[in-house]
Amino acid sequence: MKKYSVFETGKDRERVETVMSRELLALSPRMRAREALARLRQVGMPREFLANCYVVDEEGVLLGLFTLRELVVAPENRRLDQLMSAPAGLLRPEDDRERAVLLMEETGRTELPVVDGGGRLLGTVTADGAMEVLRAEATEDMERMAAIRPSERPYLQTGVWDLYRSRVVWLLFLMISATFTGAIITHYEAALAAQVALTAFIPMLMDTGGNCGSQSSVTVIRGLSLGEIGAGDWLKVGWKELQVGLLCGVTLAAVNLLRLTVLGGGDVGVALVVSLTLLVTVVLSKLLGCILPVVASSFGLDPAVMASPLITTISDALSLVVYFRIAALLLAV
Amino acid sequence: MKKYSVFETGKDRERVETVMSRELLALSPRMRAREALARLRQVGMPREFLANCYVVDEEGVLLGLFTLRELVVAPENRRLDQLMSAPAGLLRPEDDRERAVLLMEETGRTELPVVDGGGRLLGTVTADGAMEVLRAEATEDMERMAAIRPSERPYLQTGVWDLYRSRVVWLLFLMISATFTGAIITHYEAALAAQVALTAFIPMLMDTGGNCGSQSSVTVIRGLSLGEIGAGDWLKVGWKELQVGLLCGVTLAAVNLLRLTVLGGGDVGVALVVSLTLLVTVVLSKLLGCILPVVASSFGLDPAVMASPLITTISDALSLVVYFRIAALLLAV
Repeated sequence: MKKYSVFETGKDRERVETVMSRELLALSPRMRAREALARLRQVGMPREFLANCYVVDEEGVLLGLFTLRELVVAPENRRLDQLMSAPAGLLRPEDDRERAVLLMEETGRTELPVVDGGGRLLGTVTADGAMEVLRAEATEDMERMAAIRPSERPYLQTGVWDLYRSRVVWLLFLMISATFTGAIITHYEAALAAQVALTAFIPMLMDTGGNCGSQSSVTVIRGLSLGEIGAGDWLKVGWKELQVGLLCGVTLAAVNLLRLTVLGGGDVGVALVVSLTLLVTVVLSKLLGCILPVVASSFGLDPAVMASPLITTISDALSLVVYFRIAALLLAV
Repeated sequence: MKKYSVFETGKDRERVETVMSRELLALSPRMRAREALARLRQVGMPREFLANCYVVDEEGVLLGLFTLRELVVAPENRRLDQLMSAPAGLLRPEDDRERAVLLMEETGRTELPVVDGGGRLLGTVTADGAMEVLRAEATEDMERMAAIRPSERPYLQTGVWDLYRSRVVWLLFLMISATFTGAIITHYEAALAAQVALTAFIPMLMDTGGNCGSQSSVTVIRGLSLGEIGAGDWLKVGWKELQVGLLCGVTLAAVNLLRLTVLGGGDVGVALVVSLTLLVTVVLSKLLGCILPVVASSFGLDPAVMASPLITTISDALSLVVYFRIAALLLAV
């Protein structure tokens, strides 16, 4: 499991050991099924949701496991080393906690043993732990998508100062990035002074580009994190987004043209420029939105940092350049 | 569990019955523990991850349940109606599937029975089903936050046409909403013509406002959906966001002022206007971001529809009005 290191610290909280339980039933391989059942009657299961019993040697090294169900239906005299089977998957305490969930999905188990480097049994991750991981990872992704450095603590328990620090870094970075967008406007200042009407459409063009980019980036980021989109699917994803982008772009451009000319009675030249820009911006933003997360993940970054805010900033700059180029061509400003 | 109906259809796919398993072990209340174990040895557990055995009467009405562990440690002669306990929680097939996860969390169980109106046992939701729900619900929230109408199918299996329809509705709605922002600019056209330098900062101000709004809205929406923020916490949330907003706003305004004056050597008046606008916009967007999801949920809407894109559109308009008012005051344009 690859780990990410952009704009955050504190990887310790994402280790398997934070969701591992040390309460379990460890039995000797030479015990008989009958004895194991007697032992179980005597001590009970240490935790309600533990479904497995573990077989370990004198050093505590995990030899195998069986479910309570298998124990119940086994012949009374069966030795545990004959009853047990090899674990379907093993976790290490220092593994990323996401691996626990992925391994459960792969192996079809909802309980996995955790062992150290010497194979000694340290604990288990059970379904309740996995559900905790799923919740926490989804929260993290959403926070990254909203330009927040993830924190583990619930909102109401987090201090104002910590909230400030988790948010201000990205805000500063994005604010300074937006300077490029301003530079583009300054560059075309003469055109704007000649055609002030163009200024009124800047927010709409920027927002639409940003929204289109968010839509495709969030879709791709979530697909990556659920394993629905794999490394070999990039061409398929790009082709799909191109088609969706064209459909959305044509729709928005048509509605906009109609609104500005027939309904609004505005300048037809400006209406054409705005609508054409919309079409190009929508397609470009959709492509950006699916390409950037892939680029991020191939550089070892979490794709989620490439979500909405960063793509918005880039698509803003793009849409303005497109806007002023098209205006220059069509309106000769 | 309240359900939402904005910009989407197909609630059937969110019912408990879609993650319910019908395979289970139903036993008669008059059976003895010994007989139940014998039966279990004979038929086995129908599914590996089933931890409970269910006791039902002749009509199939659920009377109680016990875990496999309880069966194993029970005296051989104990009758099942004495061994069983009342279910910690009951689901209905038509319940929202999110209720299954919330009930598991409340009751501390990872397996819950599903019954019909007459109390007849229909199936169970086990940990693997709950994990599926957690994944799907997080995906839905992310999609709503990115202005996508949620769909259940994996991206690569979804057709271009369906993707188009899930995205274009919100894009159109937001594009038309952004018209108001344009109207504000048109209203202040004279000011802009007099001070063209002001135009260059519009994208940066809009983006920063949008980013601040996203940060607080996503935090609040996630807190609501995880149950970390409750109905009585609004004042606390608002007060916290106000403080965080002030801290972020002062930081951004200071950095911006420094950049525009000392480093950039630009017009001090414009720099002051931009920095003051930043401060006000950041605070307003943070407050908007935490208030709108609450308003949405009190109207029975999913708070997630109030996330980034909608708040961006509103905070754009706000920040422009603030910008031009401050410019009018300080620059007399």
